Amino acid sequence: MELDPDTIAAHGRGCGVLGAGGGGPVDVGVLMCRRALEAFGPVSVIDVESMDPDGLLMPVGGVGAPTVGLEKFGRGDEGVRLRDRVEALTGQRVAAVMCVEIGGANGCLPVSWAAQLGLPLVDADGMGRAFPETGHVTMNLAGIPVCPAIVTDEHGNTIVVEAGDEAAAERIVRSVTSGLGGWAVGVDHLMTGAQARHATVRGSVTLAGRIGRALDAAVDPVGAVIDEVGGRLLLTGKVGDVDRTTAGGFVRGSVTLDGLGDDRDRTLRVEFQNENLVALEDGRPVATVPDLICVVDTQTGDAIGTELLRYGQRVSVLVLPCDDRWRTPAGLALVGPRAFGYSIDYSPVPRGGEGP
Amino acid sequence: MELDPDTIAAHGRGCGVLGAGGGGPVDVGVLMCRRALEAFGPVSVIDVESMDPDGLLMPVGGVGAPTVGLEKFGRGDEGVRLRDRVEALTGQRVAAVMCVEIGGANGCLPVSWAAQLGLPLVDADGMGRAFPETGHVTMNLAGIPVCPAIVTDEHGNTIVVEAGDEAAAERIVRSVTSGLGGWAVGVDHLMTGAQARHATVRGSVTLAGRIGRALDAAVDPVGAVIDEVGGRLLLTGKVGDVDRTTAGGFVRGSVTLDGLGDDRDRTLRVEFQNENLVALEDGRPVATVPDLICVVDTQTGDAIGTELLRYGQRVSVLVLPCDDRWRTPAGLALVGPRAFGYSIDYSPVPRGGEGP
Repeated sequence: MELDPDTIAAHGRGCGVLGAGGGGPVDVGVLMCRRALEAFGPVSVIDVESMDPDGLLMPVGGVGAPTVGLEKFGRGDEGVRLRDRVEALTGQRVAAVMCVEIGGANGCLPVSWAAQLGLPLVDADGMGRAFPETGHVTMNLAGIPVCPAIVTDEHGNTIVVEAGDEAAAERIVRSVTSGLGGWAVGVDHLMTGAQARHATVRGSVTLAGRIGRALDAAVDPVGAVIDEVGGRLLLTGKVGDVDRTTAGGFVRGSVTLDGLGDDRDRTLRVEFQNENLVALEDGRPVATVPDLICVVDTQTGDAIGTELLRYGQRVSVLVLPCDDRWRTPAGLALVGPRAFGYSIDYSPVPRGGEGP
Repeated sequence: MELDPDTIAAHGRGCGVLGAGGGGPVDVGVLMCRRALEAFGPVSVIDVESMDPDGLLMPVGGVGAPTVGLEKFGRGDEGVRLRDRVEALTGQRVAAVMCVEIGGANGCLPVSWAAQLGLPLVDADGMGRAFPETGHVTMNLAGIPVCPAIVTDEHGNTIVVEAGDEAAAERIVRSVTSGLGGWAVGVDHLMTGAQARHATVRGSVTLAGRIGRALDAAVDPVGAVIDEVGGRLLLTGKVGDVDRTTAGGFVRGSVTLDGLGDDRDRTLRVEFQNENLVALEDGRPVATVPDLICVVDTQTGDAIGTELLRYGQRVSVLVLPCDDRWRTPAGLALVGPRAFGYSIDYSPVPRGGEGP
């Protein structure tokens, strides 16, 4: 399979949905991809099984607040700089590129860099969605070291982080990102092809394409997403209050969603830290991380990132099932509701497409 | 000349005075030095002229808020880690160590690391005092690149910064320091022996020792400092209000000093960012950066850092002349009062010891 200027838009639409509100603005990501794919040719998407077991896999993505990513996007050569630094640090050639997270622009930017580098993109990522912190990856669950982590920006500033553990790495990378203006790009959790086979969420790049093509073809786009991924519709309505603050390398806040039509007497409140974390109805949680809480345009099914929510948008709120590894005790300790400070238990959304 | 367990205390007293309120708590620095000098032997203090012109000089020091440095001090092996990283990055052996700033603990910590590394310490520094930011060094005036800059902490977290310019380097290093908890140690402005001859403030290590010995011997310690360095006494009194905030890797605030004896009708207000920046009397500046505004114990002449000021301390306030390079237009653009946001002109304190 290949990603090329014709297929990248559908890929981006799928990444938007899988972003669960985060991962950065997809439109910018798709534009950067299209330019790179036109300039450098298509990108091969390969299964991790087809990687040399000793080959070096470079997970890449944006770090920081999507609100900042809207205005502070890359220059295009960040992938080259990251690859060069990785090779200098490891003494090994990079064999393939991976999206750290498939969600949002972070499912797109790595495609543009893979094109420029002439490297394949593996059909996998570290989350099966987007999450706010560098440690929120299946590579962390699998014991892959986070460092060396490398952060760079559009001015060429480059920072190599050697931290003792995941928590220190996240704290330092987030601080660096703040110092760089709130958004940057980086590499972490370098691994071999052999490690990638069990340490990543596989099939997420092709899943993004399937979701995007389903949206392209659908009369009922919300139903089409649920048919493709499972999960359920929580509410159809419009955006009311949006409360949003960008600080410390994150965007945090909440949005109130007022029901329309059959849902006219209902109100949902969704709280987010880059990504949507919990959906509450009458103060009671109806969906939580690690499941994907997605706010999409009711007409088109296109995801609306937490940085783009504004009063009056006609939206549907969906909850989609997360990867099974996030539903284990170790997974929930890392990205369950309690990991984000909520004293509530996780209640998984069924994989089958049940009604609300 | 050598620094050993017997001479380090006087060296530390001198560094305290040259800190102009900053550079970190000297007591901790002297204790760490004494332990290292006892364990590893004395440190040779050499003139930069005696360095191999091609030899690599490693300027080192603490970064961050002195208030944090009071409680978060090093483990002792930071110098080894910095040296190893410098040698890996440059492919060159480090020939000698330098204090980035001679002021406060930053005039001491490098001595402890030089002892452990078995390296000489050059009789020079980058400021002739202490200043708050990494770019506030004569190496910057001389065009020595700030990067690679390396920051590490007592947990072994190590960050290598390659920034495009001094401003970006300062912003990133400061962010990293915040992420590490508010205080860390680092290397920047690596240079050769040949560059050090014109890019540093020379003789500052021996000056610190002279000030310390003068204090040890003096009946009138305040007069002894002025006899040694020049400058003048601004006020003898006691500490009134202290307003101090630690944030963003700095301690900022101000102190009110109420005159006693002949000065009983006078009040000074000193504002600081790690170091003392301006002294105001009746709203009028009586001393400013880059001259050294020093608050010392009236009885002993020991400097009191901005992190240790508290109500009731009996103190004298001195202003000492800075290095001539800080008095040039380029020097004042970097560290004059306007560089710290004050709309006032610099009026140099005379080098001679004139009365108030």
